[in-house]
Amino acid sequence: MADPRFHDRSSVKTLSELAAIAGAELHSEDSADISVEDVAPLAEAEEGQISFLDNIKYKSDFITTKATACIVSEKMVQHAPEGVHLLVSKTPYKSYALVAQAFYPEEFPAAQVSDGAHVHDKATLADGCVIEAGAVSEEGASIGAGSWIGANAIVSKNVEIGSKCRVGSHATISHAIIGENVRMYPGVRIGQDGFGFAIDPAGHVKVPQLGRVVIEDNVEIGANTCIDRGAGPDTVIGAGTWIDNLVQIGHNVKIGRGCVLIAQSGVAGSSVLEDYAVVAAQGGVAGHLTVGMGAQVGAQAGVMRDVPAGEKVLGSPAMPVKDAMRQFATLRKLASKD
Amino acid sequence: MADPRFHDRSSVKTLSELAAIAGAELHSEDSADISVEDVAPLAEAEEGQISFLDNIKYKSDFITTKATACIVSEKMVQHAPEGVHLLVSKTPYKSYALVAQAFYPEEFPAAQVSDGAHVHDKATLADGCVIEAGAVSEEGASIGAGSWIGANAIVSKNVEIGSKCRVGSHATISHAIIGENVRMYPGVRIGQDGFGFAIDPAGHVKVPQLGRVVIEDNVEIGANTCIDRGAGPDTVIGAGTWIDNLVQIGHNVKIGRGCVLIAQSGVAGSSVLEDYAVVAAQGGVAGHLTVGMGAQVGAQAGVMRDVPAGEKVLGSPAMPVKDAMRQFATLRKLASKD
Amino acid sequence: MADPRFHDRSSVKTLSELAAIAGAELHSEDSADISVEDVAPLAEAEEGQISFLDNIKYKSDFITTKATACIVSEKMVQHAPEGVHLLVSKTPYKSYALVAQAFYPEEFPAAQVSDGAHVHDKATLADGCVIEAGAVSEEGASIGAGSWIGANAIVSKNVEIGSKCRVGSHATISHAIIGENVRMYPGVRIGQDGFGFAIDPAGHVKVPQLGRVVIEDNVEIGANTCIDRGAGPDTVIGAGTWIDNLVQIGHNVKIGRGCVLIAQSGVAGSSVLEDYAVVAAQGGVAGHLTVGMGAQVGAQAGVMRDVPAGEKVLGSPAMPVKDAMRQFATLRKLASKD
Repeated sequence: MADPRFHDRSSVKTLSELAAIAGAELHSEDSADISVEDVAPLAEAEEGQISFLDNIKYKSDFITTKATACIVSEKMVQHAPEGVHLLVSKTPYKSYALVAQAFYPEEFPAAQVSDGAHVHDKATLADGCVIEAGAVSEEGASIGAGSWIGANAIVSKNVEIGSKCRVGSHATISHAIIGENVRMYPGVRIGQDGFGFAIDPAGHVKVPQLGRVVIEDNVEIGANTCIDRGAGPDTVIGAGTWIDNLVQIGHNVKIGRGCVLIAQSGVAGSSVLEDYAVVAAQGGVAGHLTVGMGAQVGAQAGVMRDVPAGEKVLGSPAMPVKDAMRQFATLRKLASKD
Repeated sequence: MADPRFHDRSSVKTLSELAAIAGAELHSEDSADISVEDVAPLAEAEEGQISFLDNIKYKSDFITTKATACIVSEKMVQHAPEGVHLLVSKTPYKSYALVAQAFYPEEFPAAQVSDGAHVHDKATLADGCVIEAGAVSEEGASIGAGSWIGANAIVSKNVEIGSKCRVGSHATISHAIIGENVRMYPGVRIGQDGFGFAIDPAGHVKVPQLGRVVIEDNVEIGANTCIDRGAGPDTVIGAGTWIDNLVQIGHNVKIGRGCVLIAQSGVAGSSVLEDYAVVAAQGGVAGHLTVGMGAQVGAQAGVMRDVPAGEKVLGSPAMPVKDAMRQFATLRKLASKD
Repeated sequence: MADPRFHDRSSVKTLSELAAIAGAELHSEDSADISVEDVAPLAEAEEGQISFLDNIKYKSDFITTKATACIVSEKMVQHAPEGVHLLVSKTPYKSYALVAQAFYPEEFPAAQVSDGAHVHDKATLADGCVIEAGAVSEEGASIGAGSWIGANAIVSKNVEIGSKCRVGSHATISHAIIGENVRMYPGVRIGQDGFGFAIDPAGHVKVPQLGRVVIEDNVEIGANTCIDRGAGPDTVIGAGTWIDNLVQIGHNVKIGRGCVLIAQSGVAGSSVLEDYAVVAAQGGVAGHLTVGMGAQVGAQAGVMRDVPAGEKVLGSPAMPVKDAMRQFATLRKLASKD
């Protein structure tokens, strides 16, 4: 079970309650009144707990699990160990997420402005805000209802933050308009100058960065990630996009809705990611390019030209995955003969 | 136009004034008394605004621009839409930078030491410093005239910072001597121990890191970038070098004048970048190597041996760009036959 | 010599004292009573200083060194310049590390809780702690004897930190159990939510991250490095592991003892690094993989499948170094004919 010092668990629930929460169906109606009190990974689950199987790699853990209940896809039902109650879902991982949220609801602290916070007279705090010690809210900054500004975080002049946002400790936010329910993790840097200058041997000449960062609703931005403000146009992060840790987003970048950027990836200036595009870990997209809707850039891939919608690319320079796999195989074969 | 909540604009200027500022020439003397009030990207510019064309990719925006004036190179003059006043420059982007600086001059706040700052009795603040809330200036630290220490930033014991520097919020600076007019963005880490230890299965043995970081004048250091202090010699960043976000500079590295290091690149311990060298995004230079004057390391390239002056390299391991392009083509051809 | 403003040097020592400290032998007993007062790199060393030669690349510096004494391996003795006293060691770099530690012992400041710190009534501070200005220690946090919490660092609710730890400035630590003698550099992010969610076009669904980060004794964690807490299981960093700057450790990762992760490398969720594994700079390990005991992942390598114990891999996708070198050579040869 989760360490109660760090995670507050909610009450016991029946499998019929959980099936409703999970958008899943009970494999047997006999399971309806069975109750569980916690979630756990398959291998560690004990009686009274519910788990899930999503990655086939963990099938052996499923077969030997001691969980009382498990969320699975239809095709895994046949492998279920005897006595495990099943919730059948088309999206077991999503179903598990919803169940886990029910057991461990996210809770914001009670509204409070710490005596140790530095809130300017002309900053606006809506109802229910939490402003922790050492946090700074400068002149004209506006913090929406129920938002939570972590310790030592900085919300600079005239920044707008919507309701129910979480600004992590040590985050720095300037020149930005932030929507609702945005989660910014510790150490994010949002709104600083983009890397814009005219190269000159006599001394590079700075180009004033006159845009903003606009972050739409329901975005997550991982720890120590950097999002530069636009040079003229804004840098935009679309609704529901998730960004991992240590990611770099250059100036003027437009990221669509529901995109995913995994750790240490980067998108250079003025590029566009259309809705639902994915950039995997340590992948990079050069400047002034478009990655089409739903396209996927593989781990460590280096995108040097536009990627069509739906395409999956790999390699540096990046190419369609099939081409990359063929090239890897060809070279392996040739080298083995050499 | 730039959002006035975040950017303070200066007064209207005539094109003859701007030509002088920009080091450009009016294409027609009839334009001399035309005045503009702002800069804008080509596609968004409106009457009364001045824009620029530098990247041929945006030529179609030029042809349809509504800007009153535009800074272009000589060869683009022929494509100018009717009625747009032209400033002709050999370096349109640099000229634009100077014009934009004239409209949006960088301004430091008025001198002030926040009540919430922690300034040691034996720290020295020259005239005109700004020390924001939560910032720390330890014993013996010396901050030059007109320098601006952001909220919650830390200037450790005996660090010297020159005049007109900008230490961003949450920056950490120790064991360092910083020149004049250096911009350190939020979250930079300067002067911590380099990654020096003797590998030993019984427990790696730390090697005391006895050098410093020396940063010369007019350097920019991006958000969350890390520069370790030297192990014995100093780590040195030469005058006028620009470093982007999330860059790693190892101990003892010597970076020359006017170099450019783009986001998420890294230079390992004891390597040397000679003047005007460039390392593109996610590129890496292994330890104990020299990248010659003006050499360019491509995006995601991995430099494993010295790079001669002026050479452009690409690939991992890095090789001259022409060789890399030929290898990419050869493999593509072979794989297509496979 | 090291700049005394940043580094406090200990007293003069004889070579016989230093040989004992270094686990080395005097090449000549005549050297026993010679004393030195400092360490220095070969090229910069002067009379009265001791240096070392470990990397053959610096042999020419050895031949011309002005150092009074030098730590070398047996096979380099023959190249010693006349008059330089030699300490012979099987591990010259480790010996140098021990000597340098003797001259520059790490010192923690005297115990003190700054008036500007924010320590909760129900946080526990053992004897000898240093809590600097702006640091936060939340309810239930426990700081071990002699540990040093840097300025503006944050130790969140119920976090346990062992004795003699160093939490760097601006570090953020939550949901974590930290052992003894752990060094966390400025800006580390430990314990934030892992990047766990079910992808859904209607809005990605967050998976509560219910584990912790467990860091064993004698670990180093570099500046701005991020270690996410587990999703269910814990994320674990084994004893004596050294992690450089800007590294990403995903949720559920298990890192063994004595591992080394170099700058900007990353390990994705649920992967395992067995004892003494190494990941070089900008290398990546995909999720749900095992890198065996003592295996080495090269710089910029991309590990996409399990790596056997002791194997050295390179390339993206990663393969055994010999295979990678052969592939590089084959392609070079084919392209040169093209």
